[in-house]
Amino acid sequence: MTDFAARLTEGVKRFGPLCVGIDPHPGMVPALFGGDTARGLEHWGRALVEVAAGKVAVVKPQSGFFERLGPGGMAAMAAVTRAAREAGLLVLMDAKRGDIGSTAEGYAEAFLSAGAFFESDALTVNPYMGLDTLEPFAKRAAAHGKGLVVLVRTSNPGAADFQLLDTGGKPLYIRVAESLLPLTERLMSPCGWSNLMMVVGATAPEEARQVRAAAPKALFLVPGYGAQGAAALDACAGLVDGQGGVVSASRSVIFPKAADGAQSVDAWQGAIAAAINAAQSELAGAVEA
Amino acid sequence: MTDFAARLTEGVKRFGPLCVGIDPHPGMVPALFGGDTARGLEHWGRALVEVAAGKVAVVKPQSGFFERLGPGGMAAMAAVTRAAREAGLLVLMDAKRGDIGSTAEGYAEAFLSAGAFFESDALTVNPYMGLDTLEPFAKRAAAHGKGLVVLVRTSNPGAADFQLLDTGGKPLYIRVAESLLPLTERLMSPCGWSNLMMVVGATAPEEARQVRAAAPKALFLVPGYGAQGAAALDACAGLVDGQGGVVSASRSVIFPKAADGAQSVDAWQGAIAAAINAAQSELAGAVEA
Repeated sequence: MTDFAARLTEGVKRFGPLCVGIDPHPGMVPALFGGDTARGLEHWGRALVEVAAGKVAVVKPQSGFFERLGPGGMAAMAAVTRAAREAGLLVLMDAKRGDIGSTAEGYAEAFLSAGAFFESDALTVNPYMGLDTLEPFAKRAAAHGKGLVVLVRTSNPGAADFQLLDTGGKPLYIRVAESLLPLTERLMSPCGWSNLMMVVGATAPEEARQVRAAAPKALFLVPGYGAQGAAALDACAGLVDGQGGVVSASRSVIFPKAADGAQSVDAWQGAIAAAINAAQSELAGAVEA
Repeated sequence: MTDFAARLTEGVKRFGPLCVGIDPHPGMVPALFGGDTARGLEHWGRALVEVAAGKVAVVKPQSGFFERLGPGGMAAMAAVTRAAREAGLLVLMDAKRGDIGSTAEGYAEAFLSAGAFFESDALTVNPYMGLDTLEPFAKRAAAHGKGLVVLVRTSNPGAADFQLLDTGGKPLYIRVAESLLPLTERLMSPCGWSNLMMVVGATAPEEARQVRAAAPKALFLVPGYGAQGAAALDACAGLVDGQGGVVSASRSVIFPKAADGAQSVDAWQGAIAAAINAAQSELAGAVEA
């Protein structure tokens, strides 16, 4: 079985580090696909997956944007996830789950089990409740070749409120990263990177370098590139010669200006393809710089 | 509009502080209701709601146990939530969501908006990403009279990993509680308690007292009573004369030994009613002690 880390590493070598966020913001899904309905989200997501396949290694659906449309929205998310995996894309599900053991089991079963309704290749989780709450996810990841993506240093301004608090000479996010090292080892892939991935925002490149120093074998998921304001060079600060992680962009590549008012799916897909290619080129330039 | 805090306070005065967790653990839903399927969870949840109505103020569905059954499981959760609210129960949705602003909007819309698919009276959220990530929930709570329930000091053993770290003379969970004080004020109800609720585990009574001292107007959600091992006296440590919060129990009241092998819904409901009454009595005794 080829695991998440190995497939991701192979995909990034082939396509570059861009990860396309599947984030159907309210009111942003074109009428062309059915607009802001569960059906619209599914059609739009499938069309997006068609463009992304063969251009990037990984896509990242944001579950909150589907959940707001209820069980129908969740069914759309499941359908888009299945379509992406069938198209050869890795799906990194951004649901930021986390709970005590028995409940975490439920989430792990929903997202990280073979044949599950929302089966994905990796899942984002929140570490605040402690390492024991990550165990059910880690066990599923180890058993099914999946990835576990833990929030460490996020990209939003409020990340400073708690993640940057000094905890005996080190900020909390470094403590979190260090605490994850045994799990990083346990989930090590033969490819040399771990199936444990850390979220390290593009908006804090110096801190990304510190996390990289603390956790040299963890893959990074880097959000905040593009619409959230971080430049490509900053986004790549925690990568190692362009390897060891992915850089996520959503609004800038899935709602580009050139796609506004597209009159056909073909025209829309052309605009998205151009935006994805532009972002991959920009990141490739940053990696070489 | 009567808000969450006012309705909760009124309900706790009338019934006592017990909150019944609606936690359909895998394999635990009796065959009588259809067992471990979306349909089984809905029937079981509706029967549980029938018993709980008139015996407790509030129920707490644990979304992870529904989500593992996919969109159908989520539809069952929505149906049970609607049934509970129609029966006059407050629904505190335990989904532990949290994300950056635009995504948090999606979750807030899904759970805290009037008429939403999963409309609840309050929602648990995770503070790790920072105060800005709580804003979309706070705005919905203020606009719709809902409650916002923030993880502060959880009941699991691993809570110690990060929540107890010393941050310049104070543990992280106290910093989190203190940081939430302005929001606690903003969400104050005319009843004298805030619509901001803090999760403070029953397994750490001394720490519950410290959070109470730091946040005298916040409601408390106290998990860990019963199956997780905390006694009634410890569970009530953060309450104020039995007011100011609820104590959650699930396995001990929804899967009591007396309900094992019940041959009819009536017999099953009788066993659940007895378990709920016993827990309320035990908590009432602890409050008076």
